[in-house]
Amino acid sequence: MKNKHKYSFKNDYSEGAHPRILEKIIETNLVQADGYGEDTYSNFARSNIYKELNSTIPDIHFVSGGTQANLIIISSLLRPHEAVISASTGHINVHESGAIEATGHKVCVIDTNDGKLTVDHIKSVINIHVDEHMVKPKLVYISNSTELGTFYSKSELSSISKFCQKNNLYFFLDGARLGSAITASDLKMSDLVDLVDVFYIGGTKNGALIGEAIVINNESLKEDFRFLMKQRGALLAKGRLLGIQFLELFTDNLFYNLASHANDMASKLSDGIANLGYKFLAKPETNLIFPILPNKTIDVLAQDFDFYVIEEVDKTSSAIRLVTSWATRINAVNKFINILEKNT
Amino acid sequence: MKNKHKYSFKNDYSEGAHPRILEKIIETNLVQADGYGEDTYSNFARSNIYKELNSTIPDIHFVSGGTQANLIIISSLLRPHEAVISASTGHINVHESGAIEATGHKVCVIDTNDGKLTVDHIKSVINIHVDEHMVKPKLVYISNSTELGTFYSKSELSSISKFCQKNNLYFFLDGARLGSAITASDLKMSDLVDLVDVFYIGGTKNGALIGEAIVINNESLKEDFRFLMKQRGALLAKGRLLGIQFLELFTDNLFYNLASHANDMASKLSDGIANLGYKFLAKPETNLIFPILPNKTIDVLAQDFDFYVIEEVDKTSSAIRLVTSWATRINAVNKFINILEKNT
Amino acid sequence: MKNKHKYSFKNDYSEGAHPRILEKIIETNLVQADGYGEDTYSNFARSNIYKELNSTIPDIHFVSGGTQANLIIISSLLRPHEAVISASTGHINVHESGAIEATGHKVCVIDTNDGKLTVDHIKSVINIHVDEHMVKPKLVYISNSTELGTFYSKSELSSISKFCQKNNLYFFLDGARLGSAITASDLKMSDLVDLVDVFYIGGTKNGALIGEAIVINNESLKEDFRFLMKQRGALLAKGRLLGIQFLELFTDNLFYNLASHANDMASKLSDGIANLGYKFLAKPETNLIFPILPNKTIDVLAQDFDFYVIEEVDKTSSAIRLVTSWATRINAVNKFINILEKNT
Amino acid sequence: MKNKHKYSFKNDYSEGAHPRILEKIIETNLVQADGYGEDTYSNFARSNIYKELNSTIPDIHFVSGGTQANLIIISSLLRPHEAVISASTGHINVHESGAIEATGHKVCVIDTNDGKLTVDHIKSVINIHVDEHMVKPKLVYISNSTELGTFYSKSELSSISKFCQKNNLYFFLDGARLGSAITASDLKMSDLVDLVDVFYIGGTKNGALIGEAIVINNESLKEDFRFLMKQRGALLAKGRLLGIQFLELFTDNLFYNLASHANDMASKLSDGIANLGYKFLAKPETNLIFPILPNKTIDVLAQDFDFYVIEEVDKTSSAIRLVTSWATRINAVNKFINILEKNT
Repeated sequence: MKNKHKYSFKNDYSEGAHPRILEKIIETNLVQADGYGEDTYSNFARSNIYKELNSTIPDIHFVSGGTQANLIIISSLLRPHEAVISASTGHINVHESGAIEATGHKVCVIDTNDGKLTVDHIKSVINIHVDEHMVKPKLVYISNSTELGTFYSKSELSSISKFCQKNNLYFFLDGARLGSAITASDLKMSDLVDLVDVFYIGGTKNGALIGEAIVINNESLKEDFRFLMKQRGALLAKGRLLGIQFLELFTDNLFYNLASHANDMASKLSDGIANLGYKFLAKPETNLIFPILPNKTIDVLAQDFDFYVIEEVDKTSSAIRLVTSWATRINAVNKFINILEKNT
Repeated sequence: MKNKHKYSFKNDYSEGAHPRILEKIIETNLVQADGYGEDTYSNFARSNIYKELNSTIPDIHFVSGGTQANLIIISSLLRPHEAVISASTGHINVHESGAIEATGHKVCVIDTNDGKLTVDHIKSVINIHVDEHMVKPKLVYISNSTELGTFYSKSELSSISKFCQKNNLYFFLDGARLGSAITASDLKMSDLVDLVDVFYIGGTKNGALIGEAIVINNESLKEDFRFLMKQRGALLAKGRLLGIQFLELFTDNLFYNLASHANDMASKLSDGIANLGYKFLAKPETNLIFPILPNKTIDVLAQDFDFYVIEEVDKTSSAIRLVTSWATRINAVNKFINILEKNT
Repeated sequence: MKNKHKYSFKNDYSEGAHPRILEKIIETNLVQADGYGEDTYSNFARSNIYKELNSTIPDIHFVSGGTQANLIIISSLLRPHEAVISASTGHINVHESGAIEATGHKVCVIDTNDGKLTVDHIKSVINIHVDEHMVKPKLVYISNSTELGTFYSKSELSSISKFCQKNNLYFFLDGARLGSAITASDLKMSDLVDLVDVFYIGGTKNGALIGEAIVINNESLKEDFRFLMKQRGALLAKGRLLGIQFLELFTDNLFYNLASHANDMASKLSDGIANLGYKFLAKPETNLIFPILPNKTIDVLAQDFDFYVIEEVDKTSSAIRLVTSWATRINAVNKFINILEKNT
Repeated sequence: MKNKHKYSFKNDYSEGAHPRILEKIIETNLVQADGYGEDTYSNFARSNIYKELNSTIPDIHFVSGGTQANLIIISSLLRPHEAVISASTGHINVHESGAIEATGHKVCVIDTNDGKLTVDHIKSVINIHVDEHMVKPKLVYISNSTELGTFYSKSELSSISKFCQKNNLYFFLDGARLGSAITASDLKMSDLVDLVDVFYIGGTKNGALIGEAIVINNESLKEDFRFLMKQRGALLAKGRLLGIQFLELFTDNLFYNLASHANDMASKLSDGIANLGYKFLAKPETNLIFPILPNKTIDVLAQDFDFYVIEEVDKTSSAIRLVTSWATRINAVNKFINILEKNT
């Protein structure tokens, strides 16, 4: 394969799926099932997720990817003049090629240090949108864990949640990396039923082949969601493929075990790097870390590893992004630290 | 599973994937690959499809489903005031929940007998769109094979193609069931490079878990297509999943063999039904057939088989839709004919 | 001006505005007023319209044209997957260049004889839209008077209104030619407060320079309408221009007097034509009439008059469209009949 | 009228139209004219504008307002994934209620000191948009004069123009206040034919009742523009209303004379204010000025004048916005300075 002699820390979707997921796909392969997410496997997956949520109230839908989840959720909630509030680093703002705007809605952005929104951030947006000559901010979007690898504590989420309720704003949590956030923080998945109007559970970046599970808590947002999925091309004929994967991810804690492994591998990397005296662009908390290294050292590491150089920090050093996953091997982590140590 | 004692002829996506595809997924599972369709497997798949096309000129992109393919292709080609011409039975008109309109474009429809457009149909639409107070029809959409199970001959496609070129219209072929069309007709896949501006090769309904391969022939339509895929949520992080499947489908004729099997099974069904004296709503040509049966007989068949009743034909009989696939078992076909015979 | 020797029966917007309207514009010209429809003139206009409606409950907004009114109203009411039901002759379907689709919504059309929808028409659309694979029809659109010059009686509107309420459909009346409908039928403007969720009162085609008054009856549809107007470019900085015109139109019955004149002139034309033994494509009821005349006669008339030839009726005769307005002169009508008589 | 004892410096659209324009409307009122901008008056207006442009190459279209002009122009130029670059103070970003996003496009914004874009600003946006996971910036939007009352010199425009040509970007100038910019700077209207792909000439804020004249220079952007106008509700039935106004504005220099008057009045205001020792938020250059005054003084002025308080500058003083127009009276200006002087 491309770059076959290098080990990749570029992202958390370089490998396929956890073997248990593939086994389940094979095991059920020739059973005839209903289409479009109404199959038994999808229903079993919903049941397993309901257990995690301690609630059967939410509606659960499976889609194939994060951008798809974001654009369907947001466009289903908003009237044409309503807008989304997001950190400027938010995935919907930077890395979705205008997917939200393509559904007609403005993203109102705020610069942050760590990729995390606070109530003050949100207020600052609300306060400048005063009349009908401007969009009406109506939905708060956060990603957890964030694009900078940071996470929200339960109390941080709670503050935003209360503010949103008071101010008649929807609160949506993009959980493309929810596994890494939950296993790194005091948040439980069941907390989200009360904290947010809607969120999704990321499968693609946590051991599935594809798939995100959208969880709609707010009763008023449930109506006709399948129409909106279909309209955006998200209702897969073989919806079983998504159901089977989430069924398996939420059997015997596989989802959390995979996320924990990713976080552990990142933690080993960041500990090793910190021990060698290096600093980080953002505090290493989950499976994305951003060490700042001398450019010369980066060149050496790049001979054996694939990763992104994110930004120049000064004339001689840059921040790189290292991403671990459910599939990251400990010997690759060790090798990285060893090479770094030799070149420090 | 649901309706577990019944055999389903409801559609061609009731089962998972052909075993060879699953084996390939497992075999490559832990190899690290680039994301978003730029992996080696997707590139090998492109190579294999180029062989089928006898050309390396087209651009090839993989997406997860047919509605997604349709909405991305159409919205990438048209300016805001331009419209699509389609048979009223066309998938984009009836069964995509307004996906095309949601991207801003009108579908101009024409009623047909057999789900197939002709040059005269297209002319009739063009002729009534005379000025800027109406949309400007700019793209001709056909599905092959059609939603009524009929197919276009090469010369029928050629007539439309010539008309489109003369009249500055784009010509787009929805090939969700292209395998069944090609194996039933005189059309070869390589013919399509010259005949249409863009088409797609359906995987979901021909043995893949998910996936359609979009083939763009017209040079001017290639630019920035990946942006448009990303914007609509179609650039899968683990694009390898799509690449691997098409790689395997276009190895050793698997794609055609699967489609032939589906057509054969449908042919056996329709021959058996015709031999018992029954008629059809549309001529049985591919893997979708529409026999007209007495309502009482339909009730008996429905005890053992799942299928859709499409419409009442008269007070005592209705048309049903039977769909076969790569996975249809011959004993299910035989059983259907036997029960029908006993009840005739 | 173009075709200066010919008198135009092409449309009801060939002249400027009624002189009283121009006088009011001049009289108020240098008074400073607030922008964007919040000026005193617009408020006085609203008061005068409230008197006509026998109600102060509706919200009233002024926009510059009919297509603008239609696209703002419809896109403000519908969620992305919801669709409009319209006669195939409806203005939004034929003559707005895909304005509704450009806001993301499908228009579900039904063929009619006279441009008028009935409950049975609406039912026939509802009945075939059964699940989330299709759009969800949610709003019934009618124009009154219609594009064929016919009008709805109060009881016809009442039937549709009841059906819509029972079936949770919005009911929207496009009143670009509401004046001609009301003065020709048993309908009063105040009836519309209860009969429809929203309608608009056409000024452009009834003596104003530009302008349509949108009346929103349904409480739940009022919220944030000004945002939606602004977003579509409909909140005029000098909103006074619209307010002043409607203020004057609804002073001393000017609106109805102008519409009556248009209907009278059309009636004189249709009576004269009928007396000469000619038939009509649709029953002449308002200010649009469609006489069927020999092609040779049409050629003679076309030397002195401008009008549209709508369609061939047989090899030797065609239907033409004659439109009268508040400004139509009786001597032009008489001349038309005279020339026709001489050539009959 | 509201606030009738106060003189308004809130905006440049508080009064109606220049009397010459009204006279022309009355004079032509009962002449029958073609609809939708194809009337003789619109054609004469085009001729007069061609003289100003020293060119008959551009296409000229009239629409009713600035937001409408912006949204039609931008959505006609861009493919779905393409974005606009704008200063964060740009009208399309702040004050159009998401009109551009509602047509599907992202606005990429840059903070500036004076509301003016430079090549470096534009480069900074281009440089961070590197691949198909982000939008593709394709059009540079500027307003001239700007929302902060500043203007672009001819050489500043020329620099941006060259950069855009080299980098395959469209260049669009929003001329809602083009009159004030041209009469204040070294720019001529005819320069714009070569400098930008498209611009519009603002009528509403320079003496017309309503109306902006869109001028399309780039040949490839002309096609089907009237379809796009119609689709967005901008093709007025009585297009004569727009044509007549621009015909008169571009007869005997009326357009420039009105803009000069507005600039002169603003200049008198800013000179008087500066002479009293006050500073400005942005350099006073055209008909919008932003003096910084003590809050106590502002309260006194507010008893006799209407204006917007824009922002707090420190604990005791704020910036206000004063706008003059073609209709501003010199005695109101003098009174403002007198009251300010007494309270200084």
